[in-house]
Amino acid sequence: MSQKNQNDVLEKIVSLSKRKGFVFQSSEIYGGLNGCWDYGPLGVEMLKNLKEEWWKFMTYRSDVEGLDASILMHPRVWEASGHVENFTDPMLDCKSCKSRYRMDTLGESINTKKKRKYLENVDLSLLGVTGNLNSLSDEELEEKFEEGLAHAETVPKILAEMVCPNCGNKGTFTHPRQFNLMFKTFIGPVEDSSAAVFLRPETAQGIFVNFLNVQNSSRQKLPFGIAQIGKAFRNEINTKYFLFRTREFEQMEMQFFVKPSADKEWYDYWKSERLAWYKKLGMNTEKLRYHDHPKDKLAHYAKEATDIEYQFPFGWGEIEGIHNRTDFDLGRHEQYSSKTLKYFDEESKEKFVPYIIETSAGASRGFMAFLVDSYREETVNDEQRTVLGLHSKLAPIKAAILPLVNKDGMPEKSQKLEEALRNSFKVFYDDKGAIGRRYRRMDEIGTPFCITIDTQTMEDDTVTVRERDSMLQDRISIDKVKLYLFEKLNL
Amino acid sequence: MSQKNQNDVLEKIVSLSKRKGFVFQSSEIYGGLNGCWDYGPLGVEMLKNLKEEWWKFMTYRSDVEGLDASILMHPRVWEASGHVENFTDPMLDCKSCKSRYRMDTLGESINTKKKRKYLENVDLSLLGVTGNLNSLSDEELEEKFEEGLAHAETVPKILAEMVCPNCGNKGTFTHPRQFNLMFKTFIGPVEDSSAAVFLRPETAQGIFVNFLNVQNSSRQKLPFGIAQIGKAFRNEINTKYFLFRTREFEQMEMQFFVKPSADKEWYDYWKSERLAWYKKLGMNTEKLRYHDHPKDKLAHYAKEATDIEYQFPFGWGEIEGIHNRTDFDLGRHEQYSSKTLKYFDEESKEKFVPYIIETSAGASRGFMAFLVDSYREETVNDEQRTVLGLHSKLAPIKAAILPLVNKDGMPEKSQKLEEALRNSFKVFYDDKGAIGRRYRRMDEIGTPFCITIDTQTMEDDTVTVRERDSMLQDRISIDKVKLYLFEKLNL
Repeated sequence: MSQKNQNDVLEKIVSLSKRKGFVFQSSEIYGGLNGCWDYGPLGVEMLKNLKEEWWKFMTYRSDVEGLDASILMHPRVWEASGHVENFTDPMLDCKSCKSRYRMDTLGESINTKKKRKYLENVDLSLLGVTGNLNSLSDEELEEKFEEGLAHAETVPKILAEMVCPNCGNKGTFTHPRQFNLMFKTFIGPVEDSSAAVFLRPETAQGIFVNFLNVQNSSRQKLPFGIAQIGKAFRNEINTKYFLFRTREFEQMEMQFFVKPSADKEWYDYWKSERLAWYKKLGMNTEKLRYHDHPKDKLAHYAKEATDIEYQFPFGWGEIEGIHNRTDFDLGRHEQYSSKTLKYFDEESKEKFVPYIIETSAGASRGFMAFLVDSYREETVNDEQRTVLGLHSKLAPIKAAILPLVNKDGMPEKSQKLEEALRNSFKVFYDDKGAIGRRYRRMDEIGTPFCITIDTQTMEDDTVTVRERDSMLQDRISIDKVKLYLFEKLNL
Repeated sequence: MSQKNQNDVLEKIVSLSKRKGFVFQSSEIYGGLNGCWDYGPLGVEMLKNLKEEWWKFMTYRSDVEGLDASILMHPRVWEASGHVENFTDPMLDCKSCKSRYRMDTLGESINTKKKRKYLENVDLSLLGVTGNLNSLSDEELEEKFEEGLAHAETVPKILAEMVCPNCGNKGTFTHPRQFNLMFKTFIGPVEDSSAAVFLRPETAQGIFVNFLNVQNSSRQKLPFGIAQIGKAFRNEINTKYFLFRTREFEQMEMQFFVKPSADKEWYDYWKSERLAWYKKLGMNTEKLRYHDHPKDKLAHYAKEATDIEYQFPFGWGEIEGIHNRTDFDLGRHEQYSSKTLKYFDEESKEKFVPYIIETSAGASRGFMAFLVDSYREETVNDEQRTVLGLHSKLAPIKAAILPLVNKDGMPEKSQKLEEALRNSFKVFYDDKGAIGRRYRRMDEIGTPFCITIDTQTMEDDTVTVRERDSMLQDRISIDKVKLYLFEKLNL
């Protein structure tokens, strides 16, 4: 698909999400709140289903325990984790018009030609360039410009030449400074630094600080994991791509504690398991890939890392990260809390800080990836239809009950069926409009089965069950519908 | 039970929660964060079960839709709701030692004798007292002292006499001022008032502002409801009673939109339904009651209101509120957003702002109430045991697999059973210690069924299934265990 068509898909998803009740803009009647989204009636079911599938896959096994830690944590947690110091983006201000920019956004708004000009007075050897400016390709130049703004000796020279995109004045930028992406608030009645706490920017730390609490209460032995689903918050300057980069989002994280010598084995195991999970839920294999981090680009805590990426309409994007975090996290929390977080191994009689293999999935990103992945428009029998080909485990509504005509006790029979099914799973009753249109409405929201009650039903108590993708119909006894769906839905 | 025994129960619950992995103190290794708690491996399962029961009960019906709105909302929402203006507690400072007090807490720390003294120079007629101080009972005096601190003319006279409990100086208190209980943070890179947003102090507003989004996408007609489960935050000065009053907590709220003339009917309906829900899940009927709010104590938005209260060890406490909120909320959001939130009734061709009947339950409080309610110590066959008599729907672990001895292929058979069950529900495998002790461990965490694999199993493939409360055992074929549990657990 061309870039334009790709972007069309995203627009269509956003529009369908609002129209059908998957996702609304937060506080929409007040003009919205940037980077925050609300899940509507269908979205909340699909998100719940996604989280439940993750929870069962990750915790319905003997070696993983669950946890639900609070969003507000002790501020020392974020000193130990490195977030207070390192979880930052560089920002700068225009002294003339007071506009504020994130440095990479500002960089994006300047074309390569201008960047070339801004580098004219800079000693390029400081940036590792041996030739002159003309020897650099556009791509190399973009890279050197970015490096130049991060280099203590070259940044003043570049800034002196740069023009503010807002007021057009030259050389009015402040020196870049670090802006922390954690949301800060104050606990208790006094707003001073001793009362400052943060909204967690990741759920992982809640797991680390509870390592011994969980191990002691569950009597687990290494290797074992702790899994958690929950909200996290990042004060992103640039939110983008619908649910992809937001300020409030949900994570599904699991931290697996292992002997240091077993790290490679378990890293490989989880890397493979996690990709398999997306495929098992029907995600297009060709749109999934690993992106292994090269050694020189690893985060400060990581020995090995890979992203599971999905090919979104806007390009490949991370939906999950798998990291060998070594003993960094527990080691830091030992140091900052002065409490031991060592594990005693009964076999070897040794005490040590375990290594951690992390699987960190975005629930909101996964939700979006499954939505995009399942969307298709197709022509069948000369008719156009839009389908969300969602795996039945993810589909918000499992079955629709569609009485063909409103007479002869048909509504009563239909409603009786609805009531019999409603206790077991989410169903939808629709008696409005032509049956073809009703099928289309269900296709568009991914409902795997439509049950039609017709005149024959009134004679022999059979109904038709239509499957979404094949559109094939089974005629079965009305008494058997529940069992039929249980089997087909694999419940 | 005496007051002391009652408090013992709460202490025992807190201790069991930590030891067994229901609830830990948040950030415990850093000394904890006041008013925040983490749910451990058993707690997270029980809380999930509780929320799932609520979700099914409230949304697996044709007239209620689900929603999951973001925690951060547009700041105007809280102006419209009245929280910016009214969601406050009065506070005062000691000018001498800088101690800060919430007024009601300060009041609680002063005995009646002292209060009597502080009122000596006050014109009692301003407080509606006709006689002198001595004519007031202790109870009346407590009430008048509180009124005196809220009365513009009497408060300076009382404060002039009052002694700071911290430094002991007299007359050093500032005039009381209102402290807002919402947590404030800043969105975007600039920390000024235009960027201030709040952590929601209740989930309800996310429902109100999405009323038309949900109605349009779901094509619902009045009466219908919107249900939501999610975190809320209140910067409480006094947190207390374990999970009862915390700063971070979870709510389960449903807002039911009705024609104004149908408000009473639906208020009564939901009042009755919601109490029935707690009973259905096994809560002791004698420890549940309604507390109807008298007309003169209703909140500013309410026409009628009741609390469902549970008798905790520390006294009766609200676990859910049912309110007739009238058209207050939608009316205010219309006014503040300048967007219409009217409903068009196709039958009568009328446009109007619906009334709202609200059911607002605390997930965290409900969790605590079920924990307290199910806790019992008893002596059976001269043996003491502690039991959490949780409803099987709430129990974190549904069944334990306990091989009697570790020989003759028994572990293999047991593990095979565990694997067969594990996909369907949370099970626990335990092969350590005497069988009596293993039963006790399961009783203490509320596991409804224990399956024992013994030497007879090796001969005829039968196992015993022991029920927690009756302790009666059934001997059944190992092939039938899954079906047996499905039936007993009503899955």
